[in-house]
Amino acid sequence: MSLPDAFHDIAKRVNNWGRWGTDDEIGTLNLITDEVVRQAAATVRTGRRVPLTLPLQQDGVQTGVIPGRVNPLHAMVQINQEIFGPGTVACSDDVVTMGLQAATHWDALSHVSHSGRLYNGRPAHTVTPHGGAGFGGIGTVRHLVSRGVLLDVARARGTDRLDGGYAVTPEDLDAAEEMAGTRVRAGDIVLVRTGQIQACLAGDRHGYAYPSPGLSIRTPEWFHARDVAAVANDTLTFEVFPPEVANLWLPVHALHLVEMGMPQGQNWNLEELSTACGETGRYAFLLTATPEPFTGATGSPVAPVAVL
Amino acid sequence: MSLPDAFHDIAKRVNNWGRWGTDDEIGTLNLITDEVVRQAAATVRTGRRVPLTLPLQQDGVQTGVIPGRVNPLHAMVQINQEIFGPGTVACSDDVVTMGLQAATHWDALSHVSHSGRLYNGRPAHTVTPHGGAGFGGIGTVRHLVSRGVLLDVARARGTDRLDGGYAVTPEDLDAAEEMAGTRVRAGDIVLVRTGQIQACLAGDRHGYAYPSPGLSIRTPEWFHARDVAAVANDTLTFEVFPPEVANLWLPVHALHLVEMGMPQGQNWNLEELSTACGETGRYAFLLTATPEPFTGATGSPVAPVAVL
Amino acid sequence: MSLPDAFHDIAKRVNNWGRWGTDDEIGTLNLITDEVVRQAAATVRTGRRVPLTLPLQQDGVQTGVIPGRVNPLHAMVQINQEIFGPGTVACSDDVVTMGLQAATHWDALSHVSHSGRLYNGRPAHTVTPHGGAGFGGIGTVRHLVSRGVLLDVARARGTDRLDGGYAVTPEDLDAAEEMAGTRVRAGDIVLVRTGQIQACLAGDRHGYAYPSPGLSIRTPEWFHARDVAAVANDTLTFEVFPPEVANLWLPVHALHLVEMGMPQGQNWNLEELSTACGETGRYAFLLTATPEPFTGATGSPVAPVAVL
Amino acid sequence: MSLPDAFHDIAKRVNNWGRWGTDDEIGTLNLITDEVVRQAAATVRTGRRVPLTLPLQQDGVQTGVIPGRVNPLHAMVQINQEIFGPGTVACSDDVVTMGLQAATHWDALSHVSHSGRLYNGRPAHTVTPHGGAGFGGIGTVRHLVSRGVLLDVARARGTDRLDGGYAVTPEDLDAAEEMAGTRVRAGDIVLVRTGQIQACLAGDRHGYAYPSPGLSIRTPEWFHARDVAAVANDTLTFEVFPPEVANLWLPVHALHLVEMGMPQGQNWNLEELSTACGETGRYAFLLTATPEPFTGATGSPVAPVAVL
Repeated sequence: MSLPDAFHDIAKRVNNWGRWGTDDEIGTLNLITDEVVRQAAATVRTGRRVPLTLPLQQDGVQTGVIPGRVNPLHAMVQINQEIFGPGTVACSDDVVTMGLQAATHWDALSHVSHSGRLYNGRPAHTVTPHGGAGFGGIGTVRHLVSRGVLLDVARARGTDRLDGGYAVTPEDLDAAEEMAGTRVRAGDIVLVRTGQIQACLAGDRHGYAYPSPGLSIRTPEWFHARDVAAVANDTLTFEVFPPEVANLWLPVHALHLVEMGMPQGQNWNLEELSTACGETGRYAFLLTATPEPFTGATGSPVAPVAVL
Repeated sequence: MSLPDAFHDIAKRVNNWGRWGTDDEIGTLNLITDEVVRQAAATVRTGRRVPLTLPLQQDGVQTGVIPGRVNPLHAMVQINQEIFGPGTVACSDDVVTMGLQAATHWDALSHVSHSGRLYNGRPAHTVTPHGGAGFGGIGTVRHLVSRGVLLDVARARGTDRLDGGYAVTPEDLDAAEEMAGTRVRAGDIVLVRTGQIQACLAGDRHGYAYPSPGLSIRTPEWFHARDVAAVANDTLTFEVFPPEVANLWLPVHALHLVEMGMPQGQNWNLEELSTACGETGRYAFLLTATPEPFTGATGSPVAPVAVL
Repeated sequence: MSLPDAFHDIAKRVNNWGRWGTDDEIGTLNLITDEVVRQAAATVRTGRRVPLTLPLQQDGVQTGVIPGRVNPLHAMVQINQEIFGPGTVACSDDVVTMGLQAATHWDALSHVSHSGRLYNGRPAHTVTPHGGAGFGGIGTVRHLVSRGVLLDVARARGTDRLDGGYAVTPEDLDAAEEMAGTRVRAGDIVLVRTGQIQACLAGDRHGYAYPSPGLSIRTPEWFHARDVAAVANDTLTFEVFPPEVANLWLPVHALHLVEMGMPQGQNWNLEELSTACGETGRYAFLLTATPEPFTGATGSPVAPVAVL
Repeated sequence: MSLPDAFHDIAKRVNNWGRWGTDDEIGTLNLITDEVVRQAAATVRTGRRVPLTLPLQQDGVQTGVIPGRVNPLHAMVQINQEIFGPGTVACSDDVVTMGLQAATHWDALSHVSHSGRLYNGRPAHTVTPHGGAGFGGIGTVRHLVSRGVLLDVARARGTDRLDGGYAVTPEDLDAAEEMAGTRVRAGDIVLVRTGQIQACLAGDRHGYAYPSPGLSIRTPEWFHARDVAAVANDTLTFEVFPPEVANLWLPVHALHLVEMGMPQGQNWNLEELSTACGETGRYAFLLTATPEPFTGATGSPVAPVAVL
C-alpha cells in the first residue's frame, strides 16, 4: 500500500526540499528573517499579552488513545527542605514526566515521515531510540518569534465553534483573512481558530479529540503560496478528523512536516485571543512561541504569547 | 536557629507583601504593564533573535548533588509508527522526565520559603505533595515578556569570566549599567552576566557549580530600588557560592522570592548575547521568557529569546 | 472530625505497637520465622509455579481516578545499539515511569496513617517529599517468603465472583478455611479470592474499581487472632467499596497498616491459583512475594509466585 | 566488520535455537521443570532467607556512562492525604522513574542481538520503540524459582575480591563447584561471586564499573554443558571488562542471551550469601528471583532471595 496520487500531486507542488540547502533542518522557519521580526515588533500597539497555552497537568488533553503520549505527571521531590540545617532558607523542587506532544505543542519536522522520508529527503531512520531525531529535531529551532495572524475561521463563518468533522478550506482561510484586514505574508505564523478547544475547556476530552474540525488537505497549498513559516490551531488532530479521503490518514501532517518543512502547533487555546482581536479589529500581532530545546526531540511543549 | 539580623534588616527594606493585594501570586511581575511591553517592543532595531537557553539533554547541567533535580531523560515511544497501517503516514513521539529546575529555568515564588513563610506571607505548607504549590506556582505566570537589559558585569570589570566565589555588588551593577548606556527601570528583566557558564559549555559541570560567582546579598536592594520585574543570570547557584556570610545560605533567594516576590532565572546562557550587545553597543532589547505553565510547579524550564 | 468509636474499639483489640520493639518497622512480618519458612518449603508437592501478577503495561489497572497513581509507561532508550561500533554486539535498554501502587503491589506500612500516626506510633510526618518514608518504607522489607494459604471465598460461597459491594466477613473466611482443609497459622500469608479481578481481565477497568467486593471491617480481628503475616486479594480497593459504615473510609487499611503493622497486597490475580488449588484440593503452598526494595517508598510492585 | 571466528566457533557449540520449538521465548528457563523446583524446595534446611538485591535509590549503581540507564528517581505524589476529608484515614503514594537495567536486574533474552538476530533466530527488529520487545521480552517470564548454587570463585581462589580485569574461567567454576560440594545440574541458577560489588557497597561506583572481573568467553560452554537455566553475578558488566579479546565486546552477553537463550543477572549482592554459605558449608538453596513482568521490556529489576 502507498499514498494515493491525489496526495503526491499536492506534494510536488508544495515541496521545499533543497530550497534552503541540503543540510537545512528548519524548513519554512528560514522565512522568518530579521526584517520580518522587526516588522512583527512594530505591530505591537498596546503591549497587551495574551497567553495561548493550556495548563500542563495530569488532568490534561490526552485520553490514553495515543500510546505513550502521557499527560504531565508532576511530583515534588523536595518541599520546604532546609538543606543547610534547621532554620535555614528552605527549598521546594519538582520533577515532571510527560509526552512532548501531550499538551500545547509544536511538532518538529521529524515528527512525521512518509514513504521512508523526512523533510529534505532525509531517511526516516535518522530517528533512533538512542538519540532521538538525528535530523529535524526540535532542538534545532533556536528561536521562534514572528508576526502572528489569527485567521478566525469560526467567526468568519458566523459561528462560535465549527462542527466536528468540518474541513477548513482555502476559501475559509480567504474569508478569515479578509475579516482580519491584513494579508498573510512570508514568515508569518498563522493561527487558525476552529473553536474546537471549547470542548476541552468544558472538560469533554473525548468530544474534543473526535470528531474534530481541522485543516483540509487543500490548505497546505494556501500556506505554501503565502510562504507561511508555521501554522497552529486549537485542535488535537490539527487536520480534519476523520479524514476527507478514505484511508488517507494525516495527509496534512505529511505535506506540512515532510514536504514543506513547516512546523505545526496543536492544542493552542485561541479563545481569549479571538475575543481580543474581535474587540480591536486587529488580527496581527507579535507572536513569541519558542519551543523548549530538547535535543533529538520530535516535538516540544510551548507557551506561546501574542503581544497585541 | 534562625536567620541573622543582617538578613532581616534587608528583608524589611525590600519587602513587597501586600503591595499588589493580599491575594497576589506574581509579585514584581505586576510591574510589567502593557505600557512597559509596548516600549519594550519599540526597542527592537534589527529583529535579530538571540536564544539564551542551554540544550535540554541527559548530558546536562546537574551533577547529582541536588537530590531529585535530574537532567532531562528523553525517550522515544514511537518511531515512524505507521499507526493506520502499512504504507501510511508515520509518526514519532517522545517523552521526557526531568527536574523542573534542572536546566535554564525560572524559579517560581513558591520555590523558596523562610521562617515558614512564602511570598505575601502565605504559609510554606501551601506547597504539598498532592497538588504542589497551592500558592505562587509557576502556572500563575501566564506570560513573561518585557524589556530585557543585559548587565555585563564580567565585561564591565574587564574580564571574560568572574572568579569563582566573586560576589557581584551593587557597584558592579552600576558600572555595568553605565556601560549599557540605559537606565534600568520599572518592569525590566535584568540579565546579569558573570561568564561562569563558560565552564559548563566547556564540559566542566563541577567547576561550573562550585565555587561560583553570583549576586551579593547587597544586590536585592538595588533591584528593589529600580522596581525590576525579574532577574536571571548565567550560574547554577544564582547567588555567590559559597556564601558571603558564614552559615547564611541562599539569602538572595529568600530576599527575591519570599520578600520581594521576584522570580529568578538560572543557567541562562548569556555568551552570544554578550557578543551581540558588545558589537552594537546596545544592551536593551525585547525579551520573551514565558515559563511552561505547569500547574502547581515551583519552577519551569524556559527558552528565553532576546530580540535585538 | 475524627474516626468513630466503632473503629477505635477494634483498633485497640488488634494493636501491635511495641510488640516487636519500639523501633520495629516491619510489624507482622516478624511472624515469619525461619521455622515458618522451613515448613512452608515443605508444603511443596509438585514444584508447579503459579504467577499471581498482572502484566505491567500502559494499558493497566489505573483509570486516572487516583491522582498520580499512573500506569507503567515503558519506553526504549536504546534498540540494538552497536555501542562499540558497527558489527559489534548490540544492546537494547529501556526505562519505566510508574506509580508504585499502580498494579499488583504491596502497601508498605507507611502507605497509610490515621490521627497523625503510622504503625508503632510513629508520627505521620516521617513521610517526607525529600526522602519518602523515613519509617516503615518498603525497603525495610528485605524478603517476603512464607506459607501462602488461598481462602477462596468466592468458591466457598458457590460463585465465581462476589457481587460488587459485598463485604467478606470472618464467617466467610472460616468457611473458605474449612474448604481449604488447613488451619491458617502464625506467619502465613493469606490470599483472599473474590473473583473481582475477572472484570479487569475482561477489560472493564471501571467496573473492576467500583463497586468492589472486599474485606469487611470485621476481618482484621480474624487475621489478628491467627497472627497472619500479610494479606492480599484480587481487588483494587482491598476492602469493600463503598464502605460498610457511612463516612468511614478505608478502615481496614488503617487497622492493618497502622494498628497491626500488617502489609497488604492488591490487584493480585488469583484466578489460575484458584483453578490449581481446586484441582488438587490443596490450598496451602510456598509463596514468594518479595517487594522491590525502593528506599523510602510506601509501596512496591511485586511479582508473587505460588509454588505448589 | 563482523564478529570473529573465535566467537562463531563457540556460538555453534552452545546454540539452542529450535531446541524448545521455533516459537519459544524463554530459552534455558524451560530447563526449570516442576521436578527441578520440587527438589529445590527440598534443599531448604533452616528457612533462613538471604536477600541478594541492592536498594533501589537515586544514589545507585549507575554513573551516567550508559545513556538512558538512569538510577531510580523516587517521588511522592501524595503524603498523608486525607482523600475523603479532614480527619479521615490518610494515604501516601509514590512514583518512580528508572532504567530497567539500572540496579539488581535480569537481562531479558531480547536485551542483546548480534548479526541482526535475537535468540531463536528472530530478527533484531522485533524490538521496536512502540511496543518494546515483541519477542523475548521479560514479561514472557512468568516465574523464576529454582535451585540456586553459589559458585564463590573469590573464596575458592583464596581472596575476598578478584582483581579488576580478572577473567573467571571454567577451571575457576570447577574449583568453586568442588568447594560447594554439589554438582551443578540442569535447571540450576548459578550465582558467580567475584566480590566486586564490595566497591559499590563502599561507595566507589566508578571503581565498581571498571575495570571489572567477570566471566570469561570460555564459560558459556561450561554453563551449556551443565544445562544451567540462568546465571547471575555481582558485577555491573557481568563479563570481564575490558574484554579478553581486543575489539570483541560483550561476547558472553551474545553467547548467553542470543545463542543459548539464557537470562543473565547483574549487580546481585552476594556478600551476605557468601558468609552464610561459608558458615554452613552448604552452597545450594532455593532461589526465588521472578522479574517484574513489564510487557515488552528487555530487562527488569529483581529482588532475589535465597532460602537456605
